[in-house]
Amino acid sequence: MPPDQDAKSTPPALLAVSEAKQRILDGVGITASETVSYADALGRTLAMPVHAKASVPAFDLSAMDGYAVRSEDVKTLPARLTRCGESAAGHPFAGKVGRGEAVRIFTGAKVPDDADVIILQEDVDAASEENGITITIKSGNPAGKHIRRKGLDMEKDAPVLNAGQHLSARAISLCLSAGHTDLEVYKQPRIGILSTGDELVPPGTTPAKGQIVSSNAQYLAHFVEMNGGVPINLGIVRDEAGALAQALKADNDLDLIVTSGGASVGVHDHIAGDLDGADQSVDTAHQTRIHFWKIAMRPGKPVIFGKINNIPLLGLPGNPVSSAICAMIFLTPALAHMQGRHHQDMTFHATLASDLRDNDKRQEYLRATLTYDAAGRAIVTPANLQDSSMLSVLANADVLIMRPPFDPARRAGDQVTVLPIPRLF
Amino acid sequence: MPPDQDAKSTPPALLAVSEAKQRILDGVGITASETVSYADALGRTLAMPVHAKASVPAFDLSAMDGYAVRSEDVKTLPARLTRCGESAAGHPFAGKVGRGEAVRIFTGAKVPDDADVIILQEDVDAASEENGITITIKSGNPAGKHIRRKGLDMEKDAPVLNAGQHLSARAISLCLSAGHTDLEVYKQPRIGILSTGDELVPPGTTPAKGQIVSSNAQYLAHFVEMNGGVPINLGIVRDEAGALAQALKADNDLDLIVTSGGASVGVHDHIAGDLDGADQSVDTAHQTRIHFWKIAMRPGKPVIFGKINNIPLLGLPGNPVSSAICAMIFLTPALAHMQGRHHQDMTFHATLASDLRDNDKRQEYLRATLTYDAAGRAIVTPANLQDSSMLSVLANADVLIMRPPFDPARRAGDQVTVLPIPRLF
Repeated sequence: MPPDQDAKSTPPALLAVSEAKQRILDGVGITASETVSYADALGRTLAMPVHAKASVPAFDLSAMDGYAVRSEDVKTLPARLTRCGESAAGHPFAGKVGRGEAVRIFTGAKVPDDADVIILQEDVDAASEENGITITIKSGNPAGKHIRRKGLDMEKDAPVLNAGQHLSARAISLCLSAGHTDLEVYKQPRIGILSTGDELVPPGTTPAKGQIVSSNAQYLAHFVEMNGGVPINLGIVRDEAGALAQALKADNDLDLIVTSGGASVGVHDHIAGDLDGADQSVDTAHQTRIHFWKIAMRPGKPVIFGKINNIPLLGLPGNPVSSAICAMIFLTPALAHMQGRHHQDMTFHATLASDLRDNDKRQEYLRATLTYDAAGRAIVTPANLQDSSMLSVLANADVLIMRPPFDPARRAGDQVTVLPIPRLF
Repeated sequence: MPPDQDAKSTPPALLAVSEAKQRILDGVGITASETVSYADALGRTLAMPVHAKASVPAFDLSAMDGYAVRSEDVKTLPARLTRCGESAAGHPFAGKVGRGEAVRIFTGAKVPDDADVIILQEDVDAASEENGITITIKSGNPAGKHIRRKGLDMEKDAPVLNAGQHLSARAISLCLSAGHTDLEVYKQPRIGILSTGDELVPPGTTPAKGQIVSSNAQYLAHFVEMNGGVPINLGIVRDEAGALAQALKADNDLDLIVTSGGASVGVHDHIAGDLDGADQSVDTAHQTRIHFWKIAMRPGKPVIFGKINNIPLLGLPGNPVSSAICAMIFLTPALAHMQGRHHQDMTFHATLASDLRDNDKRQEYLRATLTYDAAGRAIVTPANLQDSSMLSVLANADVLIMRPPFDPARRAGDQVTVLPIPRLF
């Protein structure tokens, strides 16, 4: 099978970020589902909708401390009623409220049958907390006020969360409340992580002349973990033809391979060649294609996407900032998609603190910090140095300023779109 | 020791959210430090600054594929030079570049001594990749362009991260690049989590009449975990005087106790009483004080903060939404502070989709969803139902609309401040 024509023969047109993203989503699979306990479900994605096993609340309950009475008994105020019992959370009043009677009630307690009004305790004169005493209602309340109706949060059998729901702590809490402790979720995708480059030495090694410490693989491992995947460290691969295929032989049980470095078209960049080679030499039954080469983005132009041994491969650039930002832009939605979920970036507008020159044809992601003015408006300051090798700038950035291709020059005070970098990413 | 006067005797004035937050920060301790490996450091906080063990990059390197030459050799173009060697990433050229010579160079490779100009490969005619051939330079470049200077990202011995730095994946990557694999961080605070209420049954139990499934404790456990703490489940405590003190006897090795429910002043709410009791009966040497009762916020007015057995205790309301939002507002900065870090909320302005009535004296946190208009502006829609028992609304909310006390009525189209709810919270 010939490689994509525009990928190898002629300099390809730049691919839009949105188009690249879509091609990646189309190229990765969705994992199977499994059942996990709620305690292990954080960050997973529901594979089946969750329905309420019972109504929540299961009964009308009081939202305040006070007295439960019948509305006809408090039409004329002050009203004198006989305290006939108590309803506390977990200890519902067993009887009904008769005419002329009041039940002492506490927040979260079941509203007794036949009571339809909650009188706040500060509106009642009561000499004690004894049953049988006469209490005086000084002011009233409309029927139903301060009563949380049965089924307010969820009705029995109603759907409370859809398939595709990202399980946050609050969503899991809702599942528990709906009566579920086992949840059907998509499996965690297994993501092979591999660095390429003869210059790389593992963390903890003192680099010799011409060498640098590899940091991208650890970044990507944390990144995958925080996006719900299982990172599998495939180590560092040398800049040699065939080295990639060799490194992958050991473990084919992967849902995606993410590489950093070697994604360019230089003589010493072999990933693209290996993808082709794998296609022709390893297994002609498995499609191996290079999906694209150059994306209209900065940092991170050289990104590749293909298949090797029929496993999708996302090849990120070697520069740490390019690699990290490409992960944020492409790997985030890809990992979500693999887990049956749609990822939507939460962007917002902020006020520029300094001028920006007009942008060229590449979508730009500028590292920037965020501060606030006295009115609470977000002010965004782009870092002076935007070199894609500078991890120190990325580590201190709060957000990325997103500039579309051909964005005109911007002045301090203009509004720009920013993408927050999640705190732990 | 008498309890705080305003907490017990007279109805206290409402406490501002900011003041409550400050009192909590003042009342919790900072953990000791320990050394952890980079692989275990995600989400931890640096207890010591990190300095670069060596400059990064450790040498001038080429940012592009091309040829490294001496500027005096390319003053007149085209220039014909002899290819005398190659410098690739990890394989630096051993010699110097002489007059009339060019070294083939690749991205990430060390710039050879005496070369000061990088010529891009597309500006060079070269018949092959053999040494000894003559190549033709068709167009030039200013000296230094496409060269990443030694120390660009960090200079040897310079501080790269300060104590108090939250260790994100990118910050850890920076530490690795700076030569560090062991990091001095604050210990993870141990947070006891306890629910109170006779109506509560553990997840997985079918509630009897008047009972509900406890979900707050699991929410708080996930919450603590994601904020870098270690959650310790202390179970469900009954609504009885002294039950809290009893539940805590088993484990005193806690940095903070977080409770939900029982934080009000009702007859059946015992936490405040227990705090006093513990002070007088258990250990008079340990200060036990109730710091406050009622905060000017909605949801979540009844929040208490005190000490029991000299362990700080944060008492959150029992309603799930109140409990979760109070955790976001108070527990987030408290957990950060306990780990030697300052937490700053990242808020932004968004356009209201519907009208809001004027606000009363309480700071309000409205559950809301976020969408975008065609221009990429964030549009925020408050949920119709804001009852603090409704987990279903919170689970589907993207942000909280923050309204200050006495905020005037707002119209659709107005700008309001929103606090994003982190995806997994």
